[in-house]
Amino acid sequence: MISNLLTEAEQETATKIKLLKEQAGTHSPSIFTIAEQVPELNIKVDACFLSNPYATELFLRYLKDELINTNRMRDVLEFYPSQNSVIAGILSDHLETAPKNIFIGNGAIEIIQAVIHNFTRRKILINIPTFSSYYEFVKEGVEVVFNKLKKEDNYQLNIEEYLRRVMDEEPDTVVLINPNNPDGQYIKWEDMRRLIHELRNVETVIIDKSFIHFAFEDENYELVSYTSMVDKYPNLVVLKSMSKDFGIAGIRAGYAVMNEYRISGLLKNGYLWNSSGLSEYFFRLYVRQDFLNEYEKERIRYIKETQHFFDQLREIRNLKAYPSKANFALIELFNGITSSDFVTSMLIRYGVYSRTCSDKIGLEGEFVRLASRTREDNEAILSALKSLLG
Amino acid sequence: MISNLLTEAEQETATKIKLLKEQAGTHSPSIFTIAEQVPELNIKVDACFLSNPYATELFLRYLKDELINTNRMRDVLEFYPSQNSVIAGILSDHLETAPKNIFIGNGAIEIIQAVIHNFTRRKILINIPTFSSYYEFVKEGVEVVFNKLKKEDNYQLNIEEYLRRVMDEEPDTVVLINPNNPDGQYIKWEDMRRLIHELRNVETVIIDKSFIHFAFEDENYELVSYTSMVDKYPNLVVLKSMSKDFGIAGIRAGYAVMNEYRISGLLKNGYLWNSSGLSEYFFRLYVRQDFLNEYEKERIRYIKETQHFFDQLREIRNLKAYPSKANFALIELFNGITSSDFVTSMLIRYGVYSRTCSDKIGLEGEFVRLASRTREDNEAILSALKSLLG
Repeated sequence: MISNLLTEAEQETATKIKLLKEQAGTHSPSIFTIAEQVPELNIKVDACFLSNPYATELFLRYLKDELINTNRMRDVLEFYPSQNSVIAGILSDHLETAPKNIFIGNGAIEIIQAVIHNFTRRKILINIPTFSSYYEFVKEGVEVVFNKLKKEDNYQLNIEEYLRRVMDEEPDTVVLINPNNPDGQYIKWEDMRRLIHELRNVETVIIDKSFIHFAFEDENYELVSYTSMVDKYPNLVVLKSMSKDFGIAGIRAGYAVMNEYRISGLLKNGYLWNSSGLSEYFFRLYVRQDFLNEYEKERIRYIKETQHFFDQLREIRNLKAYPSKANFALIELFNGITSSDFVTSMLIRYGVYSRTCSDKIGLEGEFVRLASRTREDNEAILSALKSLLG
Repeated sequence: MISNLLTEAEQETATKIKLLKEQAGTHSPSIFTIAEQVPELNIKVDACFLSNPYATELFLRYLKDELINTNRMRDVLEFYPSQNSVIAGILSDHLETAPKNIFIGNGAIEIIQAVIHNFTRRKILINIPTFSSYYEFVKEGVEVVFNKLKKEDNYQLNIEEYLRRVMDEEPDTVVLINPNNPDGQYIKWEDMRRLIHELRNVETVIIDKSFIHFAFEDENYELVSYTSMVDKYPNLVVLKSMSKDFGIAGIRAGYAVMNEYRISGLLKNGYLWNSSGLSEYFFRLYVRQDFLNEYEKERIRYIKETQHFFDQLREIRNLKAYPSKANFALIELFNGITSSDFVTSMLIRYGVYSRTCSDKIGLEGEFVRLASRTREDNEAILSALKSLLG
């Protein structure tokens, strides 16, 4: 056991880290919380953190030029941001759907909560492993049914089996995360189109495309969008976080495209001012061609570096890196190390903060999730892995 | 009619403004929306905006020193902020209650929504005039009963009558906004203490103290807090926006103190990450003595200037400024001008954006609400008023 190799002081630190993780439940404690509560750590790389660092830099550059250096920062902090429907109007052209079909969230998580609380009444079918909020946020009385993705399929969704399961279970809500979290498996556009059509009689089909900007169909890296399909399939709820691809988790921005009746229902008694000044600034930037052109370069650069990182991960002994088209890879650990010991050792010894998947239902074995960061950070992760496992 | 005095071009602008107001429903369109949609306007003073501008300056100074000039801004934008319960822990000492009794909101409005959606099941009693979200956010099937505050009492709550009304109606929820919005009437601490005690059998007593930092019992201007009373009265929900007193509406920050069982219920299936990086930064600042000492000076300075502004308002002909201990005054207009014409004329002619109260139920007559801004802005408001009405 690796933990036996830690010094007494390191053991104490390990205990603190594990306690923080327990307190945070099915999510990782933030790097701020870790740094504050365990000050002896020297955290160098946050490999928990699913975010394009080059996009953060790009956003910061705009923020500096347009808000900080112009004193417009005050406007963004002082005044009330626009209402939900006003920001929806800003996104309309870009999302190729009418403003009335667009709902803005304080992060995608607020939209997940709103959708599950308001539209899921009876039974929800969720593929596992998954992002835990999808089953944690269901209200009392709603049945949660899991569709277990198979390890032998590398957790790729088997569409035929899935559709049979939907027929058998008759859920009122299904969730498809594409690429899926925590494994990064991607359902291709043609398959998604078929799935959406076959699921047309399910009351609510949630498609979470929070990681779609990291996926690709081929070497053209063209962006895939499902938002315009909501017109044809009113049962669809296509939602997306802006935290990962744009590297702005601290701003809390997300959107969903769904049928106008759902949105007017939600806005009727809530969610009017859930954007901050900075998220409104971001959304206005997000539809600007000058920003998008630069963003597109950073997106493709990051995809290439990420896939290169995954290739190198596959070379490392004592682990399996599952195929992924997200910006993270699911890693299975061999040779007896537990994921919890792996995480604490990586953090204490190498300053690399990684995500244990010990709380993820549907995974059997010792799993961690590693995010792709900058090229330099990825090399630090690889070197730590080689040292710890090799 | 004033509108007849507007030129043709001004009439067109007036129509645009009125349309925007209609679209925004029972709330004012933001100054951003107005400026964008009606570019011909030269807006100089936002007298809709209930916010201490000196506190904004103070916050900006800290932000500049601690985030912008140190490159820590990136951390705040890039990383996930802490969870709700972590931020609750930061506020605990300052609010004199345990972290488990503290709930953090994406603005007070999110808390109002959460409380009304989750804890109001049958009947809510609301004093009018009021902040409209209290009745707009109720879910289907909940009865809304209004307790009409009396014009002849200057909209001051009559406690005996109110308690009789509560006895008669047997609501499961009552709302007390102190000072009240839009009239600024203040219920003194002794009376509040009595009210809280007398209301101990009402299932949920919401006390909205969003404007309490502008109120005062006497010339010492000491802050009044009800948060520690939640221990003794578990039916209390004391909630507060940070937008007004700290001048940071764009950040979206609010908190509530309420019984731990309510909070664990809310956090069980939602609201885990509803703070942004900037709101977390604000909350960390908010409990620091160095910041609070400086804030206290700006708060008292602003109260004094505000009360001076109200004194001068009372000198102006053709209006009545109702007594207020908030940072706004309810103004009744005489001599035949409608509040809508007043608002558009003030905006077009003098660049002063004010809030019509024509949508406020419980007000009979022509009412607007004027916010107190900087001393200079207040003088511009007074001069515009004199010119328009005098």
